[in-house]
Amino acid sequence: MKAEIITVGDEILIGQTVDTNSAWIGKAMNAAGFFINRISSISDDPGEIKSCLTEALGRVKIIIITGGLGPTKDDLTKHTLADYFGSTLVMNQAVLERVEEFFKKFDRPMLEVNRNQALLPDNCRVLDNLKGTASGMWFEYGDAVVVSLPGVPYEMEHLMETQVLPGLKAHFKADTIVHRTIMTHGIGESFLAEMVADWEDSLPAEGLKLAYLPSPGMVKLRLSAYGGEEQQRIAQVAAKVNELYTLIPDYIYGEEDEQLESVIGRLLTKNGKTLATAESCTGGNIDRLITSVAGSSVYFKGSVVAYSNFAKQQFLGIDPALLEKHGAESTEVVEQMALNALQLFQADYAVATSGLAGPGGGTSDLPVGTIFYAIASSKGVESFKQKFGSDRIRNIERSTLAVLNLLRKELVKDFGN
Amino acid sequence: MKAEIITVGDEILIGQTVDTNSAWIGKAMNAAGFFINRISSISDDPGEIKSCLTEALGRVKIIIITGGLGPTKDDLTKHTLADYFGSTLVMNQAVLERVEEFFKKFDRPMLEVNRNQALLPDNCRVLDNLKGTASGMWFEYGDAVVVSLPGVPYEMEHLMETQVLPGLKAHFKADTIVHRTIMTHGIGESFLAEMVADWEDSLPAEGLKLAYLPSPGMVKLRLSAYGGEEQQRIAQVAAKVNELYTLIPDYIYGEEDEQLESVIGRLLTKNGKTLATAESCTGGNIDRLITSVAGSSVYFKGSVVAYSNFAKQQFLGIDPALLEKHGAESTEVVEQMALNALQLFQADYAVATSGLAGPGGGTSDLPVGTIFYAIASSKGVESFKQKFGSDRIRNIERSTLAVLNLLRKELVKDFGN
Repeated sequence: MKAEIITVGDEILIGQTVDTNSAWIGKAMNAAGFFINRISSISDDPGEIKSCLTEALGRVKIIIITGGLGPTKDDLTKHTLADYFGSTLVMNQAVLERVEEFFKKFDRPMLEVNRNQALLPDNCRVLDNLKGTASGMWFEYGDAVVVSLPGVPYEMEHLMETQVLPGLKAHFKADTIVHRTIMTHGIGESFLAEMVADWEDSLPAEGLKLAYLPSPGMVKLRLSAYGGEEQQRIAQVAAKVNELYTLIPDYIYGEEDEQLESVIGRLLTKNGKTLATAESCTGGNIDRLITSVAGSSVYFKGSVVAYSNFAKQQFLGIDPALLEKHGAESTEVVEQMALNALQLFQADYAVATSGLAGPGGGTSDLPVGTIFYAIASSKGVESFKQKFGSDRIRNIERSTLAVLNLLRKELVKDFGN
Repeated sequence: MKAEIITVGDEILIGQTVDTNSAWIGKAMNAAGFFINRISSISDDPGEIKSCLTEALGRVKIIIITGGLGPTKDDLTKHTLADYFGSTLVMNQAVLERVEEFFKKFDRPMLEVNRNQALLPDNCRVLDNLKGTASGMWFEYGDAVVVSLPGVPYEMEHLMETQVLPGLKAHFKADTIVHRTIMTHGIGESFLAEMVADWEDSLPAEGLKLAYLPSPGMVKLRLSAYGGEEQQRIAQVAAKVNELYTLIPDYIYGEEDEQLESVIGRLLTKNGKTLATAESCTGGNIDRLITSVAGSSVYFKGSVVAYSNFAKQQFLGIDPALLEKHGAESTEVVEQMALNALQLFQADYAVATSGLAGPGGGTSDLPVGTIFYAIASSKGVESFKQKFGSDRIRNIERSTLAVLNLLRKELVKDFGN
């Protein structure tokens, strides 16, 4: 069963807001067996909303619209849909009470524009929004369903999960869609393609589709099956994924968009080990990812973000003579950073970074993008030097991933997967 | 002049990749005077590509297509466009040499699929890609221009900046588009709307458009003028923005998507002051933002990410009795963290956080989402307690912004803007 997404808002067209809602909806719909045929982003303009909706209704039977339901004057979606579907707006008492409750709970005065959020079309099913004041709307139009949701991501997600997805599954027969995504790190897209060429050639005969999804430092491989009997398709995809594990074992680090920091968290928790970091050029980015995982306080002891030589000496006990002789960006210093962090934090593993993220500060001996990183444990210390590019943010991101993958490999070496 | 964007790739429809390219292109095109009418995301399917292109050509004269130009088998855009425009694919010697050079430089063997990247349509203008192996293509079709670009963001951006934007400006007459965006923090969307209601009512008479763009912890206000004489429109928007500064002076922290960390960096640099942090619940996220700014090593001395009581004692000298008596998440501890970080890093300003990001660990006295934060300087220490929600990542993001805005306000108080 195919569906389309329409996002309403000038902020998307002029690039001020990145459309993360569509990605979220696409993923959730796919998992529920609905394939997104097209995503259209349009202006907060009644004419555009109506013509885009008419076009989409000519292609599919499910349309999800996000955005334009706020209380301010640039929000036009509700009135436009009421006009399109010939509705009358009526005050919904239950919604009004909930909105009033909402303002009382946060101890804020309620304004007329907030009260108007409870004025809703009389011919839609109102989708109760417990996270905000803009209700969702479910219209049935011939044999099609058109759903309108607020653009605030966590309100939209809440309505999708509690009402839209269950409603669509009850209303339509969903298709079988099976995806498995294999996460790889440390090899480029075309080399990966070369290594799995024969395997890839065998896929069409089984009706399977492969996609390469490169992003800085990693390539995801997504294997998909559409239609057919679900259990059979899952087994078919699983068999092909198993073959992949034998073809490129060194490059696969996880599946299903699992992030390196989650894999690391799982391995540290399972084996009762702890981690500390000493970050220079990555500036807290490794810490941020490690602590983004719920439960990380169990295994993460902490970090020194040593963004100055003073901090390297004061907090990590780096020998001033070593800094003088080799410079802060060197194998010697990054190894001492990792070893000292290990000892000072009394951790089982420690990683450290030091380098030139750029864009300024490079020399011919030490060009911008040169990053040193190290890992220390009871087995000793090991360090690496890698040359990234000239873009500061990309250098921070890519070196962060390199360090996380190094740590993951070390944990796998010590404890298995 | 209106334009449309078409992004090609199943990964966007199934939500595996967030379409950041369209936002980037929308922003760049807008600045150049081209308004994006619609963004369409479609499947890697020749039929879909052709029908979406035909529809877009019925609406606008400029179409930018991204994605599907890679070397692997799921990349179909080049062949589809060659078919659509009746092209023959020919080996482009100059491109082939550049691709060969590219592989030589990175010391990698070149594969047949990489060589095929130099096979290009004979009736397009080839856009040289110096950052990768997929060339851009510029087709002229009647009075319309259709541009095809690779989906890798930094390759796409490189081609847009060096060739597409200059080419479009030379080929078409661009419209006047003036935007100013005012960044606010610390007030909700509907309260902001109430405060500026009369001002907002005065805008349509001048042909100006206002948009509210809320995101966690902040609301952006975008004022736009379309058409007319550029200098006049700029002056008109500026006059209205000046009025806004007198209406809501306490909530405005910057303009044009300037981030809090950039404002802080500017103020610290200008006044020759330094910063240190002591992060617990925010786990390095403040540091990451501070160090994302080029040149931050001048003013950022570093941080202790004290994710354990042990680290709070060992690296920040927090009194164990204080931790025992008040708990790590308390006014007393967070104030001592800020004061000690100030002293130990020998910084002019220090900020600290401690709290429960969640989702686990809450009690009735200290529910999940309770965050303490403090700022210390030569004037002493000040702290705040705030209750955020139950979502870990949102709590980290929102408390990070609260701390950065506190620091910004303190700097403005001490030195002016």
